[in-house]
Amino acid sequence: MTRQASENEVGERIEAMRRRPQRFRDERITMAHGAGGKASRALVEGLIVPLLTNPALEQLTDAGLVTVAGARLALTTDAYVVRPIRFPGGSIGELAVNGTVNDLAVSGARPVALSAALVLEEGLAADVLKAEVAAMATAARAADVQVIAGDTKVVERGKCDSMYVVTTGVGVIEQGVVLAPQLVRPGDKVLVSGTVGDHGIAIMLARGDLDIEADVRSDTQPLWPVAAALLAACGSGLHCMRDATRGGVATVLNEIALAAEVGVVLEESRVPVRPEVTGAGEILGIDPLYVANEGKLVAFVDAEHADAALEALRALPAGKDAAIIGEVRDEPPGRVLGRTTFGGHRLIDMLVGDPLPRIC
Amino acid sequence: MTRQASENEVGERIEAMRRRPQRFRDERITMAHGAGGKASRALVEGLIVPLLTNPALEQLTDAGLVTVAGARLALTTDAYVVRPIRFPGGSIGELAVNGTVNDLAVSGARPVALSAALVLEEGLAADVLKAEVAAMATAARAADVQVIAGDTKVVERGKCDSMYVVTTGVGVIEQGVVLAPQLVRPGDKVLVSGTVGDHGIAIMLARGDLDIEADVRSDTQPLWPVAAALLAACGSGLHCMRDATRGGVATVLNEIALAAEVGVVLEESRVPVRPEVTGAGEILGIDPLYVANEGKLVAFVDAEHADAALEALRALPAGKDAAIIGEVRDEPPGRVLGRTTFGGHRLIDMLVGDPLPRIC
Repeated sequence: MTRQASENEVGERIEAMRRRPQRFRDERITMAHGAGGKASRALVEGLIVPLLTNPALEQLTDAGLVTVAGARLALTTDAYVVRPIRFPGGSIGELAVNGTVNDLAVSGARPVALSAALVLEEGLAADVLKAEVAAMATAARAADVQVIAGDTKVVERGKCDSMYVVTTGVGVIEQGVVLAPQLVRPGDKVLVSGTVGDHGIAIMLARGDLDIEADVRSDTQPLWPVAAALLAACGSGLHCMRDATRGGVATVLNEIALAAEVGVVLEESRVPVRPEVTGAGEILGIDPLYVANEGKLVAFVDAEHADAALEALRALPAGKDAAIIGEVRDEPPGRVLGRTTFGGHRLIDMLVGDPLPRIC
Repeated sequence: MTRQASENEVGERIEAMRRRPQRFRDERITMAHGAGGKASRALVEGLIVPLLTNPALEQLTDAGLVTVAGARLALTTDAYVVRPIRFPGGSIGELAVNGTVNDLAVSGARPVALSAALVLEEGLAADVLKAEVAAMATAARAADVQVIAGDTKVVERGKCDSMYVVTTGVGVIEQGVVLAPQLVRPGDKVLVSGTVGDHGIAIMLARGDLDIEADVRSDTQPLWPVAAALLAACGSGLHCMRDATRGGVATVLNEIALAAEVGVVLEESRVPVRPEVTGAGEILGIDPLYVANEGKLVAFVDAEHADAALEALRALPAGKDAAIIGEVRDEPPGRVLGRTTFGGHRLIDMLVGDPLPRIC
């Protein structure tokens, strides 16, 4: 999924990525447009955002921000179309709650309320639906948030795949909290809150298309306690957080490098990956750095607060495998370089090639 | 779709409806569970709400309410799966913005921000998507609201029907505004903001299954100006508003009658219906009272403010066909009676029988 690229190719690609607005040139929607990589970016930046233009949406952050009667609110929405709907470690209902909670959390917003919209396929077993609504309820309780609005639609057989769930969350951002990719600066440390690649690999294995036996479970979990601990430990030393969902940690690092016009050097050996995830990834030909997580965030913290941040993360069950995995540099702007175990460097590009469809 | 019922049957049905919590007994999801009538009610009240239990959701209003840092917020979500996606008078993108704006409006909430999640079918023409995003942008501008968050997912061919849209809205409720079905009391007048049945009939005709030629257009439009005018004209004399979407005006009246434990007498001859809607409804065997609207609200106002409310509505383009269509009584509690042109009464029950699938 990644490859060595010549300096020329790299330069051209970076320039192409930076030229804004991106253009959307495809005539039809393909699965790649949903996979979180370059094609998704072209769809969102090249087609959707220019039409719906407003400052909040143009930020392309995990949540839109709006101030209402003095309260700073974050609003975020996610559609869940994961296949299969139940998998080791979780299910679509749990994922839908945690994913939206996490988009709020990495925006620095305490989750306040969720809405849930269900699109159901005619013929869906009531027990299946019941299990997912129960999973949403359990996840909401665990994340200390309430589902206060909902909608249900039914479509004919063959016009959905059992069920899709769309959750939207509202959160409140405390006074003084300011997080943005543009605050990331050379010298910042890059932290990840735990092992990477678990969710995506769990889904790939759960599909059963591949004859691989491995005990890999989704990491779906709420990240507000993790985000709150970082905010408390670092104050304004915490510059930016992102949850590493579609496209994985590699995509997050690229997005931040581009937005902040900085270089990121990743110490690949420091990235926590479960051995079974590494193993399955090797067989599948997938680099865990590009694989979706559903309970991990990447944080950019100034050097002064990096140790405090790491300690705060490791004190939490959801952060016990946290690590400092890299550093922000002046050069090369907009690029992510991986320092390999053998001391060399490789370009860690945005996701190209085959997508991992319907991973969330 | 409606029928005369014996007194015994009526009594049994009313009792069954009132017994709370409703039970959900079906083994599989059917199209009727999405049609907005009794089956939808059983699904929501019998399966979803008991699992996600919290006071805001149990209200089963158009929006959930939550107070954040002193601001009274309303949150509402809707999934749009209308078929076809473009129809006379509108399209799925426009519908998705207006529908969510209207759920906020009838909650007394000024729309502040929207989110939009798109589920796209692989192979969808980019021009089709572009047209719908543009329709959302135009509708958002017309409703004076911004789309500040979004998500896009792609599913394989045959796992969606071109595109589904889920919009969620946040609105703010001014100090002093209190609206609730429970505030509706005997003596209140019932107003509708315009002609009924236009949207649903337009969709049925647009499907082209029926060889009927009629110039019926969807009434999709934002209702916040209408709601704001009623709030200004009536103050606390405005007791409750509902937008009459799936299940139509008849369903709204039944929901309020049950919630407020009052009777509603509807003067059927005063309900504004376009002649072409009446005509198409007769051929289709559908009573326009049960047909979805996407730009009409029903308001319950005390007698003292009824004329001011009517005047305020008629002063607006979106309310020019407004009418006082009925009155709230003590008896019969939980029932809606229609006074026919011939002076008789009929029971106007909740939607039973064949659903109108995927009308929004």
